[in-house]
Amino acid sequence: MKKKYTEKDLVETKIATIAEQNPQFLRMQTDAVQLSNSQKTIREFVLHPGAALIIPEIKKGELLFVKQYRYPLKQIFLELPAGKIDKGEKSIETAKRELREEVGYTARTMKYVTSIHPVIGYGDEVIHIYLARGLKFVGDSPDEGEFLIPQVLTLKQAMEKIKRHRITDVKTQIALFWYEKILKGLW
Amino acid sequence: MKKKYTEKDLVETKIATIAEQNPQFLRMQTDAVQLSNSQKTIREFVLHPGAALIIPEIKKGELLFVKQYRYPLKQIFLELPAGKIDKGEKSIETAKRELREEVGYTARTMKYVTSIHPVIGYGDEVIHIYLARGLKFVGDSPDEGEFLIPQVLTLKQAMEKIKRHRITDVKTQIALFWYEKILKGLW
Repeated sequence: MKKKYTEKDLVETKIATIAEQNPQFLRMQTDAVQLSNSQKTIREFVLHPGAALIIPEIKKGELLFVKQYRYPLKQIFLELPAGKIDKGEKSIETAKRELREEVGYTARTMKYVTSIHPVIGYGDEVIHIYLARGLKFVGDSPDEGEFLIPQVLTLKQAMEKIKRHRITDVKTQIALFWYEKILKGLW
Repeated sequence: MKKKYTEKDLVETKIATIAEQNPQFLRMQTDAVQLSNSQKTIREFVLHPGAALIIPEIKKGELLFVKQYRYPLKQIFLELPAGKIDKGEKSIETAKRELREEVGYTARTMKYVTSIHPVIGYGDEVIHIYLARGLKFVGDSPDEGEFLIPQVLTLKQAMEKIKRHRITDVKTQIALFWYEKILKGLW
């Protein structure tokens, strides 16, 4: 590095929001911002309400996944259940609701694991991860037009799928790495 | 599940692209699509050229990170170096270029690790992860207006930061979990 920067130099300051788009569902914001060297630039990003992901532990070392078609990538993904936070909802409530709606389970305990940022370059989304234990099947009620196939895998099978590049969804991969640490008593 | 679906039921078929936005930088596409039950809906997503992330191994178990301000979340993130694929560029070339531009290193070997999808719900981005070994400092040349602070951490320190929710960027977290498996000779 020719010049050493301090953290203060990294900060970008908003001048004005110059556009907001909301074509159908995705909200996008365009800001004029000023860098620490007084240079001006544009920052554009997707606005997201946040989401919750659930690690549904059927029994120790055995988890419930869903298969879902993801249109932007035109392929079916193997994922852990997750969903967007509704307005005014706490993320743990989202986790309970999505576990019930997507796969039809209630949980005796819903434990906070961590929060992750999937798209820091052009989005403000945060995903809160919860570990659901003591599951009870009560019947599901997926959203209209939401097609899912549930699938049970052991952690070992799932980790093998990560290794073989078959589970590539970041939220699912991270949840599995964390679950492995938790199961081993490391975290 | 009241009704059992097969993988065929998950697939969504494009009817037409009904809008494309490109306000400043982010490209967004809105498609009318048909579900397997013939219901019609809208799918909207960000178009992304893909990216490459580099795990720069300074020495065994010691990696080079960058601190960067991420405007959408208004905070400084500790990340591994990464950047968007230029038009016509192979992802391994992107990895080499970004390693050189962002932190000023060349690598003797650049090994493919895996590819991940950060935002399957509303974007087509894929991030290819490479492990860079045999590093040599040759001087950096970051993009105009790109402010970075390099920071060296051991894998142990970095994993501790994940555990304490201090590294939340998904691509960085996943690269570290993979690197830990590789170092342990497991993957």
